[in-house]
Amino acid sequence: MKTFFQPQSVAVIGASERKHSLGSQLITNLLYGYKGNIYPVNPNYSEIRGMTCYPSVEAVPGQVDLAVVIVPAPAVPEALEDCARKGVRRVMIESAGFAETGEEGAILQERCKEIARKAGIRIWGPNCMGLVDIPRRQLLTFMHPRVYEDGLIPGRISLIVQSGMLSAGFLADLMSERLIGVSKACSIGNKCDVDECDILEYLLEDDETDAVALYLESIPRGRLFVELACSSTKPIVVLKGGKSDAGARAALSHTSSLAGNSALLNSLLEGAGVTLAHDFQQMMELARDLSMIPDTPPQCRTAIMTFSGGSGILACDLLEEKGLEVAEFTPETKEKLSKVFPDWLPPSNPVDLFPAFALKGPLGAYLSAFECVVSDPGVDVIFMHYFAGLYRNFEGIKEMKEQADRAGKQLVLWVIGRREGVGTFRREAEKHRIPVHGELSRAVECLAAAARFKPEREGLSERPDPRSTPDFFTEAARLLEKRKTNRLWDEYDSKRLLERCAIPVVDELSAGTPEEAKKAAQTLGYPVVLKGLVPGEVHKTEFGLVHLNIQSPEDLGKALARIERRVGGVGYYLVQRYRPGEYELIAGFIRDRQFGPCVMFGIGGIFSELQKDVVFARAPLTREEARSMIGRIRGVKLLRGFRGMAPLDEEAMAGILVNLGNLGAFFPDIEQIDINPLVVAGGVPLAVDASVILGRDSVLSERATCVS
Amino acid sequence: MKTFFQPQSVAVIGASERKHSLGSQLITNLLYGYKGNIYPVNPNYSEIRGMTCYPSVEAVPGQVDLAVVIVPAPAVPEALEDCARKGVRRVMIESAGFAETGEEGAILQERCKEIARKAGIRIWGPNCMGLVDIPRRQLLTFMHPRVYEDGLIPGRISLIVQSGMLSAGFLADLMSERLIGVSKACSIGNKCDVDECDILEYLLEDDETDAVALYLESIPRGRLFVELACSSTKPIVVLKGGKSDAGARAALSHTSSLAGNSALLNSLLEGAGVTLAHDFQQMMELARDLSMIPDTPPQCRTAIMTFSGGSGILACDLLEEKGLEVAEFTPETKEKLSKVFPDWLPPSNPVDLFPAFALKGPLGAYLSAFECVVSDPGVDVIFMHYFAGLYRNFEGIKEMKEQADRAGKQLVLWVIGRREGVGTFRREAEKHRIPVHGELSRAVECLAAAARFKPEREGLSERPDPRSTPDFFTEAARLLEKRKTNRLWDEYDSKRLLERCAIPVVDELSAGTPEEAKKAAQTLGYPVVLKGLVPGEVHKTEFGLVHLNIQSPEDLGKALARIERRVGGVGYYLVQRYRPGEYELIAGFIRDRQFGPCVMFGIGGIFSELQKDVVFARAPLTREEARSMIGRIRGVKLLRGFRGMAPLDEEAMAGILVNLGNLGAFFPDIEQIDINPLVVAGGVPLAVDASVILGRDSVLSERATCVS
Repeated sequence: MKTFFQPQSVAVIGASERKHSLGSQLITNLLYGYKGNIYPVNPNYSEIRGMTCYPSVEAVPGQVDLAVVIVPAPAVPEALEDCARKGVRRVMIESAGFAETGEEGAILQERCKEIARKAGIRIWGPNCMGLVDIPRRQLLTFMHPRVYEDGLIPGRISLIVQSGMLSAGFLADLMSERLIGVSKACSIGNKCDVDECDILEYLLEDDETDAVALYLESIPRGRLFVELACSSTKPIVVLKGGKSDAGARAALSHTSSLAGNSALLNSLLEGAGVTLAHDFQQMMELARDLSMIPDTPPQCRTAIMTFSGGSGILACDLLEEKGLEVAEFTPETKEKLSKVFPDWLPPSNPVDLFPAFALKGPLGAYLSAFECVVSDPGVDVIFMHYFAGLYRNFEGIKEMKEQADRAGKQLVLWVIGRREGVGTFRREAEKHRIPVHGELSRAVECLAAAARFKPEREGLSERPDPRSTPDFFTEAARLLEKRKTNRLWDEYDSKRLLERCAIPVVDELSAGTPEEAKKAAQTLGYPVVLKGLVPGEVHKTEFGLVHLNIQSPEDLGKALARIERRVGGVGYYLVQRYRPGEYELIAGFIRDRQFGPCVMFGIGGIFSELQKDVVFARAPLTREEARSMIGRIRGVKLLRGFRGMAPLDEEAMAGILVNLGNLGAFFPDIEQIDINPLVVAGGVPLAVDASVILGRDSVLSERATCVS
Repeated sequence: MKTFFQPQSVAVIGASERKHSLGSQLITNLLYGYKGNIYPVNPNYSEIRGMTCYPSVEAVPGQVDLAVVIVPAPAVPEALEDCARKGVRRVMIESAGFAETGEEGAILQERCKEIARKAGIRIWGPNCMGLVDIPRRQLLTFMHPRVYEDGLIPGRISLIVQSGMLSAGFLADLMSERLIGVSKACSIGNKCDVDECDILEYLLEDDETDAVALYLESIPRGRLFVELACSSTKPIVVLKGGKSDAGARAALSHTSSLAGNSALLNSLLEGAGVTLAHDFQQMMELARDLSMIPDTPPQCRTAIMTFSGGSGILACDLLEEKGLEVAEFTPETKEKLSKVFPDWLPPSNPVDLFPAFALKGPLGAYLSAFECVVSDPGVDVIFMHYFAGLYRNFEGIKEMKEQADRAGKQLVLWVIGRREGVGTFRREAEKHRIPVHGELSRAVECLAAAARFKPEREGLSERPDPRSTPDFFTEAARLLEKRKTNRLWDEYDSKRLLERCAIPVVDELSAGTPEEAKKAAQTLGYPVVLKGLVPGEVHKTEFGLVHLNIQSPEDLGKALARIERRVGGVGYYLVQRYRPGEYELIAGFIRDRQFGPCVMFGIGGIFSELQKDVVFARAPLTREEARSMIGRIRGVKLLRGFRGMAPLDEEAMAGILVNLGNLGAFFPDIEQIDINPLVVAGGVPLAVDASVILGRDSVLSERATCVS
């Protein structure tokens, strides 16, 4: 990747002198600050902007590290052949007209890939805006020079953007507001070869990048992406487009992406310590704040200093909503603060400084109060509200940041006021690496993300030893071999497999006839559940094949009579001990196209199904990963002794998840496993119904979408 | 109120010439554009800024419509006496140092109220920033003149803000960005007399106000506020501060507000068609969009026109997330669009215009595509993305708006790009009354609010006839009379009251002894439920006093034996027919301090309790209101035939809610009623447990907080 990012020489295939042409803009952009050799290539010119123009890359005298291609799509294969002849190993195809335009373009793209493969060329693009490195002033892009007319602001956040125009528009917006500095902006287009994983890997090692923000429409190498994220020490923020049906359709037509299962994707990314964004600007603010205040402790005990009671109150509301703490000051801090304030006002958090303005002046009030607050041992974060432009611009900001740094405290600002004042103030703050926000709720949202950053990264890089096969391997393998011709296993067979993998299942007996069923009930003891298992019938309950809580032989007789007609001859009976619980969970395994083998865990039952409270993690799982899955459920409160219920035996649950993950991970024939429900009684989970699906089939990923 | 808003003459008590004094800033602000007579009042001056200064209001020769007071708090009562003598009937006290500062200040505030009451004076404030009327250039405020140094932008949105500094800061921010025009900004401070209801009532009739945005920390006259909102034809947006514990504590110290039960408050406001905001800028954008596109139809079939595939995709995601539709174009529209696009691109929604730029130029592409889309009968809204500043500023915007208006379609913009270009563009759009947003998610959020606006207002002004007493009045009154000395009614008594009010309750019999209980079970038929009712013991289940699903006399005997020790002598038994259901609901009545008698409805059971899916409405209810309560539950999908369950009998449920509301509304002794659970089997709701609480007591509002 380094050659893409730091080429010593660049050939521009399709360079031009024609005004407003992309080939001309590329040259203008390179001349802006690129330090290496530039070789314009175009048979129609002998000279461009005072530089020799070559008829082909092959004709270039010196070495060419990188070729940037901007000729029309049909001419691109020839350009690649040209590069191959010259021995160029890195080509950035910025031309459009490939897979994004339909079948014909896709064929063209395949041809390019083939040429590249043979010649050992790596391709960036096609259909992209290339690469902008702002600190280096190196613009390998055809974007309109007016985009950076207001200047480019170097920073330490790097961007990977799948959408070309968006990356340009977005940069222009950022640059123009002069708020968030950028290091590298990478537009990856159709990513026929170089993709987000390649670039992310590079940026995670890049000394000039503190955080990476990505807008992606697909993550085909999802598993690798998650692994990279787990290994990262830098914040990664992802905005995923194409989550909705309409969005996914548009994404397909846009850069021929595979949208994928978004519940699974979100959960895996979150589990890998990635921060998810929902909009462009918010993505940048998240990345900036995460890079500036990554040490925010999880409890995030926040002191609010404000010029307005109202914004202080709202800040409290927003902090509590996000589960962050409004700090409680020590008596010493209160005592010290009382000297800043008029007598009638007992100091408390939020610190409303307005009443103190009259005594000390605005600047004096802020500085004095800051000194009191920053030394309070119960304060982790100082969230300062500032009104810029009305009073003299705040010069103490640098000093306050230094004080905060010395005390190991985080400083975050919310600034409103007159436009020019706000602008100056924000630029000043950015220089001192203080996050500044224009909306309270955004500030708190970013603070919450920063508070999650460190704890979420704990133990991320520890993975199960891939060589240690599970204890149950031989037994499970034997059963799988026996049933391998069945794609959809029925409930009974499925639970036999689970049983072999030390997953607790409900007591049950199968029975071929009503008489056998009655005997089975006698053996198990009443109350029992009667189910009719009929091949191909997966919706047992909807089809009246399930009778719960049967109390006596007479009732069993009646129930048998009701289902006999449907079961007799084609299926058989299953008699289970009736075991009602306080609530239901679900667990499962899925082999995803992009993310590979994954374990699912969530809350079950009819109401929770609507809530879709489910998490995913890569299989196989460590025990610690399994435990943390349980903690990631939104309704985890329910599992931890809610309203007098026994708390869930989390160790038992984690064991089930580990075993499920091992089962799926070690047996590639298994495509999907569902345990639904996993009934919890007195805190103990027990598999009551289950299904196993073998074989690789496209239906599976879709099924997972329904489940989740 | 009109005299406050349009006084012919204003006396400024505490006018001053001292630089930076509030009294001097008040005069400067009045001179900015106020057209009536200004009378400075201050015994220390004979002239201020060329105007005669009077020693007292009484000494003013002409009539004084309004006195604005800015003398120190202790001098305010005397100023009021002065006003009383002069016959001034409207006084705006902008001085601080009253109830917000503690007990002493509260006493001073009471004294002022008393003087005003006797003299027939209405007070605005104290502790406020007064009133700013931007179209009139009438600034009855001491705020710093630098706030409006960048000019004031007249508009048609009026503001009511409880926090002084906030209103100023906020105005400065708005004015400076020059984005959202304001009509009146009212800072109401401690609102010891004039409150948000008085002002809202005025603004709802004000020809210069299209929408009202409010930041409030309390709504003491909540019932009236809700009634005003129901009667309004204008959009009302409320940002409520002090919802969290920390926020409420801060609010108490800030403007001595009562925070109230926020779940109830939010639900009642939403039920009254109020749009709830969560941040300041968002509140303003909501108000602006609601005032500009109030006719957005609920399905909100949206066409997206964009310069970037990525933003189109994200817009789809965000629309679907908010339950809005991405429009499906007719074949005619697609046919027309295909002429705008290069051949390889099949036109679809979102319309990604970038590929068409080369053919028609950016402006041409937008205009041509707009013409195709605006006439599509399946399109309600056109959501246009624009990149400002890179190309020539968009002059077709006015024309597009006119086309949209003629076609009855809504137009909303998302604009990014170079700062100056964006600014110019946004101002232009604001002039043509087109909402412009800088963030996609905010644009969609506002669009969703606009789509809800019309449907939510339907039938809001229809209220039950207050004279029609319910059928059950006499019977219920008799029982209430009999039990009136009981504050907390037990389950049995409570259900007897419900029964009299035509609310279906589970079959049950009370029994004094185990023998009677066994007989009762025989009468009802097994399975039964056994409960022990012990005076003062409300947590029956937690105390082991409830045995469900008892199948036989033997089991009943065992259950009786287990609870006999606790029940015998002090309590009695309740035997109920066991009636399990598919799910549980809750319903109730509460008499709230601020909002009066209210009915509650929600989803019950252990999981839903955590979700807090509950709505409130004013009692008594019309049947239509009761129906709409059911529809407002977030999980309403569950009640309407989810996963093969019988749909809830909504008419029966609405009947229960109407009767509950009547019961509470017509019997002021009833403080609270809880029906929990209301078990639903086969779609039929039945009250299984209930409690009635009489007497007015502060504990009740707190209890409701727990429930909700």
